[in-house]
Amino acid sequence: MAEPAPVLRAATDPRWFAAAVEHWQELLIDHANCEKKAASTALALMFAYPEDVEAAQRLSRLAREELRHFELVQQKLQELGVPQRRLSPSRYAEGLRRAARRQEPERRLDLLLIGALIEARSHERFMGLIPRLPAQIGEFYASLVAAEARHVGLYLRLAARAGYAAPEIEGRLTELASIEAELATSPDEQFRFHSGTPGS
Amino acid sequence: MAEPAPVLRAATDPRWFAAAVEHWQELLIDHANCEKKAASTALALMFAYPEDVEAAQRLSRLAREELRHFELVQQKLQELGVPQRRLSPSRYAEGLRRAARRQEPERRLDLLLIGALIEARSHERFMGLIPRLPAQIGEFYASLVAAEARHVGLYLRLAARAGYAAPEIEGRLTELASIEAELATSPDEQFRFHSGTPGS
Repeated sequence: MAEPAPVLRAATDPRWFAAAVEHWQELLIDHANCEKKAASTALALMFAYPEDVEAAQRLSRLAREELRHFELVQQKLQELGVPQRRLSPSRYAEGLRRAARRQEPERRLDLLLIGALIEARSHERFMGLIPRLPAQIGEFYASLVAAEARHVGLYLRLAARAGYAAPEIEGRLTELASIEAELATSPDEQFRFHSGTPGS
Repeated sequence: MAEPAPVLRAATDPRWFAAAVEHWQELLIDHANCEKKAASTALALMFAYPEDVEAAQRLSRLAREELRHFELVQQKLQELGVPQRRLSPSRYAEGLRRAARRQEPERRLDLLLIGALIEARSHERFMGLIPRLPAQIGEFYASLVAAEARHVGLYLRLAARAGYAAPEIEGRLTELASIEAELATSPDEQFRFHSGTPGS
């Protein structure tokens, strides 16, 4: 299993992992939402840039994989007897979307790099969750984690293939990674799959 | 291969099929768009009604199948050397969406029935296209058509499972099918997978 490119600028605080173990039901419900949202984000890129046939093929396969994971998380919730309920989204995805520049071609680069960062954070949290959660959930997460690492690479390759120069990609990735790190590690009153450090 | 429930109120005019044979490149490009749109519509239903876990599972599988078809149509376009280009959408899907009632629980019923009607129309056109198109495309369409028939039944079952009474479903399906028939068969200057009868 390949490690993702080291794109994250800050590690998840151990207090987040402690909260995740305690609130594993919310974790799983929000995780299902994240898989659904990841599929929807990939589809949005396919609609926005239809001329790039190769990118659309890869994003379509990625969306199918996210949807398959969504189905598996929902099955796991049913197996574990966790009732489905609506959870408001965390500040994370919205905070990242707000950081994306509005004009093209900058916007496309930002959306791809944000995709890479979200997948990298998901991978990092999965890796930390696997040994901490009860075996039944930890093993389930172990079966999903390779995909997250693969998706980091996919989004970064799509950025390179779309014609952005390597220094531009690197520079912008560093900027967006700082915003991502702030969202993922600064104090956050809400607990979610991508929330910040619990408590104040 | 099961026939879909006879939900359509008017047959596609032979002039549409003649135009499809002539404009097979536009047909395929727009068909790829329709598969992508069908996946996106299923996802929208998953986001709108997350409490219905069973419906979400079925819609997620449906969305994966539509995405897989999208990939296959794009591959076919590449094999046949058809350059990708942007096509404006037809009046069809937007016309149907406008017919959906705004308030719940009526809206959900309408969205499911519109889903069934679009799949039924797609199935009807595929069946008519298979013998008319060159073998290479006709055989490809023959490999996709069973899914469309299955999806008609899926959307109708989701409506029944969501608790709407049979007479309510039947009555509203008849109303929406009239609107669908008008969009699919009245004169249309634009040629698309779901356009009306060509010419005036």
